[in-house]
Amino acid sequence: MADLPTGDAVIGQSGGPTAVINQSLAGVVEGLMQGLAASGKVKRIFGMRHGVRGIAKGRSSDLVDLGAIPVARLERIAGTPSAVLGSTRDKPDDAYCDKILEGCRDHDIRYFFYIGGNDSADTCRIVSEKARASGYELRCFHVPKTIDNDLRENDHTPGFPSAARFVTLAHMGDALDNAGLGGIKINVIMGRHAGFLAASAALARGARETDADPAKRPAPHLVYVPETPFLMDKFLTDVEAVYTKLGRCQIAVSEGISDADGKEIGPQLMRTGEVDAHGNIQLSGSGALGDGLADRIKTALTPKGGKSPRVRADTFGYLQRCWPYVSPVDAEEARAVGRFAADLAAKGDAGASVTIVRTSNALDSYRSACGRADLSAVARHTRHMPAEFLAGRNNVSPAFYDYCQPLVGDLPEFGKL
Amino acid sequence: MADLPTGDAVIGQSGGPTAVINQSLAGVVEGLMQGLAASGKVKRIFGMRHGVRGIAKGRSSDLVDLGAIPVARLERIAGTPSAVLGSTRDKPDDAYCDKILEGCRDHDIRYFFYIGGNDSADTCRIVSEKARASGYELRCFHVPKTIDNDLRENDHTPGFPSAARFVTLAHMGDALDNAGLGGIKINVIMGRHAGFLAASAALARGARETDADPAKRPAPHLVYVPETPFLMDKFLTDVEAVYTKLGRCQIAVSEGISDADGKEIGPQLMRTGEVDAHGNIQLSGSGALGDGLADRIKTALTPKGGKSPRVRADTFGYLQRCWPYVSPVDAEEARAVGRFAADLAAKGDAGASVTIVRTSNALDSYRSACGRADLSAVARHTRHMPAEFLAGRNNVSPAFYDYCQPLVGDLPEFGKL
Repeated sequence: MADLPTGDAVIGQSGGPTAVINQSLAGVVEGLMQGLAASGKVKRIFGMRHGVRGIAKGRSSDLVDLGAIPVARLERIAGTPSAVLGSTRDKPDDAYCDKILEGCRDHDIRYFFYIGGNDSADTCRIVSEKARASGYELRCFHVPKTIDNDLRENDHTPGFPSAARFVTLAHMGDALDNAGLGGIKINVIMGRHAGFLAASAALARGARETDADPAKRPAPHLVYVPETPFLMDKFLTDVEAVYTKLGRCQIAVSEGISDADGKEIGPQLMRTGEVDAHGNIQLSGSGALGDGLADRIKTALTPKGGKSPRVRADTFGYLQRCWPYVSPVDAEEARAVGRFAADLAAKGDAGASVTIVRTSNALDSYRSACGRADLSAVARHTRHMPAEFLAGRNNVSPAFYDYCQPLVGDLPEFGKL
Repeated sequence: MADLPTGDAVIGQSGGPTAVINQSLAGVVEGLMQGLAASGKVKRIFGMRHGVRGIAKGRSSDLVDLGAIPVARLERIAGTPSAVLGSTRDKPDDAYCDKILEGCRDHDIRYFFYIGGNDSADTCRIVSEKARASGYELRCFHVPKTIDNDLRENDHTPGFPSAARFVTLAHMGDALDNAGLGGIKINVIMGRHAGFLAASAALARGARETDADPAKRPAPHLVYVPETPFLMDKFLTDVEAVYTKLGRCQIAVSEGISDADGKEIGPQLMRTGEVDAHGNIQLSGSGALGDGLADRIKTALTPKGGKSPRVRADTFGYLQRCWPYVSPVDAEEARAVGRFAADLAAKGDAGASVTIVRTSNALDSYRSACGRADLSAVARHTRHMPAEFLAGRNNVSPAFYDYCQPLVGDLPEFGKL
């Protein structure tokens, strides 16, 4: 470790919180304590309040001494959902990154860890390049996190398995509710550009069901993701076919579904006046897409002078990413990527993005390992669902079941008459 | 048991399903098997498909032989959310009840068990009176169920504790999410006329917090129930006060909040065109109330030419009543009320509504027992939150914490910096 810089380390959390992002925080702290801090290369370990805001403002009050936290408390924090340091939606531009670097210099930070999505990887990349250009030795590590599961170079990302578990469990219970009273039920799931999370609803079926006829699949009968163009006419035909045969229909739909021109469906369904005080359309944290689809279905499926079918829409919202009970695989991997980042630093890596690689599949033999990628390989890019995970316009493939099932963990087994 | 009628028994499930209504079904079956069926008074035990529809139509195909289900499968069904027999929203009128009685006669039903809310109790009452008037011996028992917790004569009702557990856990996680990114978060909770379920959000605070200043309470900072008139001006002032002090605010609100004239707030906030194909306003299964409140807050809290605060609304929807993991107390009690109904029948009771009585309180000494009430005491009436459970316009009292905490079960303990 002789040629490693000596100084302080800082850790931050960015973007939408997840149920396991604090595991990653604990992992970095733990890794540093046993590595660079033990060897004297890292003096103090700070946490940035609200991501890079906490260092860019240059106030010491925005830095928390994480090294002083007793192990037992750190362990409890690790098992707590959401970002304990606070998070931020800031996407630093060039000038903002200058301030981050300045903050690092002021506090003698030599190791910079940022837990987040592709924007966070990009921040690491820019700050890293700026530091190099100015001759200040700073090693930047990106630790992956996103429920959307849309980071390149990763088999999947911490936060996704727990969110997928929530979505699966929700569809399992909701499918029975839908069967109990009948009618059409729409569930809107997070994921603006990638459909992995909406697709995980299919796991509620309990088996790799891939019948081409949606009415022959267990619920959810229909699954729509942003990767496949959403055609309203076909959608209404799909729903009508299932409802006519079964008297019910459960539909899982990504908030980011878009038409053949790539335009999001949500804003197109908004009713007059459904914009905020500034004329902005807001999709997340509102029931607009689900309610809009419900309206379309009612209009299309109500016979002239006849009775409207029962149509309901739930928008799962933030519970997907903050539910207190997580996927055990997710908790373990989120911890591991944090540790791995600290280990990379101890091994002299000049800066990297930690990745998750799947080394063995299937429920009972699933294994993963951490890997490294260059920051530029992960920064900014968005990963989409590969074509092999999709089946037709409204379903997932057997390959997706194989991919997703080991991640969500054991599911309850329900009884039938 | 000599003077008890001999014949068949029928069991039905009605209204909105819950996570434990199948426990009650299993309880009735179990109780009958060990009681009236063992003694030969009950020949067969039928389940009605979709509540009273299953008997009123008079088709044998709508009756399921529950006595033929192996014990292990019945046990698995008991642990499965939603109504395994199917449910119904039908509220039988006089003519409908004639058909129910006719169906009972046709199938030689002598014992009628109906699991549901106050409408189901009323159905039992009417059918019971009609049977007596016509000289047909039929004993009707109402088994309580409702997540709204609004049945008279009951300390609480099966289904409520599990729904309250979901709402509490949701607020625990969501409060941390709100703290992580800041802003204002509204959560809309089921309960059209009774606020028990929305009130259970307060348990997320982890302690009996009753500070008169909402900003000094842990989240949820504000709790609004239908029992207290919802005054929009006061609401906006409350939210602004918390947001100004903390930079965030978590709000729990019943879907049924109403103004001083008793008019529901939801429909008043609907935007132009926000009605279904038939001009009906729909509140449940839509995000209308939450989105409407969010709009109002944004409009009120955005300074002229300034930035709008981050405001999000989640409508928890059907997950509240169908989440697969339940409150253990709820599962046990839901089973017990079913068994108790069968036991009442075996003891010669001519018909009754089963109730839950609390015999001992506090988390570690909580105990309950089943009781009986006349059908007419429970039928139709709605129970509201007593004044002693409320504190001011936007909070619950210590008495409510004491009431609700033993019901939801153990909660995860979170870590803090």
